[in-house]
Amino acid sequence: MSLLVTGSIGIDTVEAPTGKAVDALGGSGTYFACAASLFGPVRLVGVVGDDCPPGFLAPLESNPRIDLAGLEVRPGSRTFRWHGRYHDDVNQRDTLAVELNVLAEVGPTVPEAFRDSRYVFLANTHPALQIEMLGQIRRPQLVVADTMDLWITTERDVLMDLLGRLDGLILNDSEAQLLTGRPNVVAAGAEIAKMVRRFVVVKKGEHGSLLFADGRASALPAYPTPNVVDPTGAGDSFAGAMMGYVASRDAADAATLRKAMAYGTVTASFVLEDFSLNALAGVSRRDIDRRLREFRQASSF
Amino acid sequence: MSLLVTGSIGIDTVEAPTGKAVDALGGSGTYFACAASLFGPVRLVGVVGDDCPPGFLAPLESNPRIDLAGLEVRPGSRTFRWHGRYHDDVNQRDTLAVELNVLAEVGPTVPEAFRDSRYVFLANTHPALQIEMLGQIRRPQLVVADTMDLWITTERDVLMDLLGRLDGLILNDSEAQLLTGRPNVVAAGAEIAKMVRRFVVVKKGEHGSLLFADGRASALPAYPTPNVVDPTGAGDSFAGAMMGYVASRDAADAATLRKAMAYGTVTASFVLEDFSLNALAGVSRRDIDRRLREFRQASSF
Repeated sequence: MSLLVTGSIGIDTVEAPTGKAVDALGGSGTYFACAASLFGPVRLVGVVGDDCPPGFLAPLESNPRIDLAGLEVRPGSRTFRWHGRYHDDVNQRDTLAVELNVLAEVGPTVPEAFRDSRYVFLANTHPALQIEMLGQIRRPQLVVADTMDLWITTERDVLMDLLGRLDGLILNDSEAQLLTGRPNVVAAGAEIAKMVRRFVVVKKGEHGSLLFADGRASALPAYPTPNVVDPTGAGDSFAGAMMGYVASRDAADAATLRKAMAYGTVTASFVLEDFSLNALAGVSRRDIDRRLREFRQASSF
Repeated sequence: MSLLVTGSIGIDTVEAPTGKAVDALGGSGTYFACAASLFGPVRLVGVVGDDCPPGFLAPLESNPRIDLAGLEVRPGSRTFRWHGRYHDDVNQRDTLAVELNVLAEVGPTVPEAFRDSRYVFLANTHPALQIEMLGQIRRPQLVVADTMDLWITTERDVLMDLLGRLDGLILNDSEAQLLTGRPNVVAAGAEIAKMVRRFVVVKKGEHGSLLFADGRASALPAYPTPNVVDPTGAGDSFAGAMMGYVASRDAADAATLRKAMAYGTVTASFVLEDFSLNALAGVSRRDIDRRLREFRQASSF
């Protein structure tokens, strides 16, 4: 079934203990779309400035499964930029610089050809903009979003309005704790599940993820990898693979969601093995399925 | 097969957001033995002073599967005491007072009747004492130990000597990081696995556990519980159930160890639902198996 994502496309500079990537392709929409494309077609809605170097968007443009009819190149604007540095413990990072640029302007428009999308993922941005984008889709069947601590703190009312329109929410453990004031992540997730129509996924990075659906909690570990180069985009790739799988199955029951999370987990485990989209670019669905089998075997009992 | 544990028996005072337990039965040997007894007989070696109130040791004494021939009540000595306080986030705690008392004296002796034990668990204490206790067992088949940050920092040489004598080590994630200097817990665990004969289990509390055996890593999530009252003893109960299951199967291949970890996980999930041994006291093997099935179903994909 048709899958649409609204998200950012950015120019990232990432410093990590093992190296550095300068002016690399990044952004939530980018990672999501590339990961989702392993499972089926995906429609990307996003906006960049006219400052992207030639070939910069090649990983998106050369992917036959990513429909870029919703990618706006806005003349006279500058593309979103992020510069971060990971610690020796790569679970910690500092943001050294952010230039919102075009993301601080009016949002992109969902093109007519995309308005019949059935599966919709609203990557993190101002919840008012997420609501506005969602309003452009005619009859979505399953709407899922991400959010962040900034909106939980500063835009709670609008965020609660958004949550009421969602089937599912995917967020980090620290965000779940912030949203509910509950330090126990299982209690927090269960509470947030009541704010949306169907399910919540709490991402815990190297510690795996939790699903709250049908009134119960499920847990998956992360894929145990000793080789983390750059975790940027792992969470967006997790969401992309998850939604890509759900759309490909045209189902969102708890068992399907759990398998989708497992696909999200292994897809993200590839992403963090190299900078930017470098690792994901060389990965096929067959590689994903092979690692999924390994992962299942290594966590069975 | 015969299972022996050497560990502490203590008088704990625990403060937690939901209540308080004063002068309650605790200690690594206590939790280990009670958890292991769900899977088969267990022999306890430990020492207390003559200050335990009447009935204090009843949970041990009334358990027909716990052999207390190695429990020494030392006249004129005082029992180990610990007083801790958990934060609203129960993953964090402060130790308010420790009285080593009898634990600072000479260690207990392994009685003759226990010296033929095949499965041995050396709960955390000074590694020289762990080596000495181990020396009293004639032909152990599988020796596993726990340790702590204090010995990693102050007694590294003795600890390395101990590790070379072990089949398996069970330790916390922060201890694995400290022992190896590696922030990536998967890399740390893999490195420690080379220091012992067969396997390492890294406990991550609410985030589950990792197994390193046969040159590969396996991950299990924690049992997702919103209801954490008192995590004291959860780690020792995890080890007790794990070793109890391994001894009952008389096997320690990777698949058996993974299932043993799953049993450790669900047993620990009961322990933290109440103070001291209160929750575990009411749990049967049937309850454990029921929760194991739930846990398996909720983490399958």
